[in-house]
Amino acid sequence: MAPVLSRREERLLRSLRQRKTREAEGLFLVEGVRAVEDLAASALPIRFALAASTLGDSGRGRALLHLLASQGVAVHETGERELAALADTETPQGILAVAPIPSAGLDDLPMDAEPAVIVVLDAVQDPGNFGTLARTAEALGAAGLVALPGTVDPWNPKSVRAAMGSTFRLPVVPADWEGLSQWLSSRGFATLAAAAGGEPVPDPRPPRAALVLGNEGAGIGDETRARADRVVGIPIRGRAESLNVAAAGAILLYELLR
Amino acid sequence: MAPVLSRREERLLRSLRQRKTREAEGLFLVEGVRAVEDLAASALPIRFALAASTLGDSGRGRALLHLLASQGVAVHETGERELAALADTETPQGILAVAPIPSAGLDDLPMDAEPAVIVVLDAVQDPGNFGTLARTAEALGAAGLVALPGTVDPWNPKSVRAAMGSTFRLPVVPADWEGLSQWLSSRGFATLAAAAGGEPVPDPRPPRAALVLGNEGAGIGDETRARADRVVGIPIRGRAESLNVAAAGAILLYELLR
Repeated sequence: MAPVLSRREERLLRSLRQRKTREAEGLFLVEGVRAVEDLAASALPIRFALAASTLGDSGRGRALLHLLASQGVAVHETGERELAALADTETPQGILAVAPIPSAGLDDLPMDAEPAVIVVLDAVQDPGNFGTLARTAEALGAAGLVALPGTVDPWNPKSVRAAMGSTFRLPVVPADWEGLSQWLSSRGFATLAAAAGGEPVPDPRPPRAALVLGNEGAGIGDETRARADRVVGIPIRGRAESLNVAAAGAILLYELLR
Repeated sequence: MAPVLSRREERLLRSLRQRKTREAEGLFLVEGVRAVEDLAASALPIRFALAASTLGDSGRGRALLHLLASQGVAVHETGERELAALADTETPQGILAVAPIPSAGLDDLPMDAEPAVIVVLDAVQDPGNFGTLARTAEALGAAGLVALPGTVDPWNPKSVRAAMGSTFRLPVVPADWEGLSQWLSSRGFATLAAAAGGEPVPDPRPPRAALVLGNEGAGIGDETRARADRVVGIPIRGRAESLNVAAAGAILLYELLR
């Protein structure tokens, strides 16, 4: 293991809980054995890690430490309590790692699949919903995610946790409607915005589609509604007013990609 | 408004955050204007409520106070800070209410719809997932929810919040496999258990189906696997290992009920 954490690194770890610092430093925090395993298996280079001195007591922890060592990652050792004090979760499960925020642009979205579907988030605010949507998008075969202004930070520790590694692999592109709209229309994408009362997903499905999902309370914004080719939705049978955005997104993505 | 909260009521409010007390008292806590509106519109009688003295400053708050008064509900008044100290959320939005936990049994599940689908939760542990599944189940037209042992408490404040009122309306039935299994087979229900790698939902769909969803980490239990007529799943395309249980549940319910 590498020597004790420097003051600078300790300050960095603490401040990476703030979006401002993540954006200024271009770095984010990954917590827990499972998430750091996913990170180490992804293309993202790990800047450094901080592990509890007890991590090597388990076989899985030992294997992760070996993997990090083989990648030349500096792993600082600390006590479990010190680790917990630096973590966002109450039980950080033995390890924290710092990695660069991947800087994907619209042209990094792969478009070889057909249908090609991009998930666009218009001010989705809950990090759990963001992460679940990222996980669903990857599992069902979407090309990537676009985060419009007002969307929760994809690199918030809670977003990262809920994504279960998907955002280490799937492109996550920050964009505004102006740039996105031009890009989508030049590539023949249909823009489908999800809202309660929207029509069913068109049949046949568009070979290229951007599925826009809106804010938990307010739904899609006016600009999204104005720019959408269609407003799509899921018929609601019960007395519930609407579906949770991650549930609605899962069903609509399934329809678009099945 | 009713006079100041009694010591007994204050103690009760505090202790209803614990499952033990909820079960002993048969009561649960509902927080926030939107949730208390849903509660007042449901068949559940409200035992009493506690409102911030500022609630009546907004038209919506005033309307809710009038509605509660018309139902004969005692509404105690308190300061915003005192209310926040008694609430589970950091921002309880002006009002808390106490209501009886509805005691539904398997025979309370309506079976007149075709297809009739029941959602069975086998140790789903996250209250957000529980609530989202309840909301999805109601919106898509499921008959109700069954909670097997090991499932998170449906009346946990976080479960109630995520359900957005659905559990005030949809039957939520605690049961064990023994009793459930007998009930399902005597009524001609097919038992479909969801797991990664499961086969697609059968076509034609069963007219009566119980969809069993498992624990976030471990999936469905051995007993569920043994009792299921089929193991169903959603084909995974990306490198994600699995879907979040609320996302998988949404897609499978949509398939079974469309």
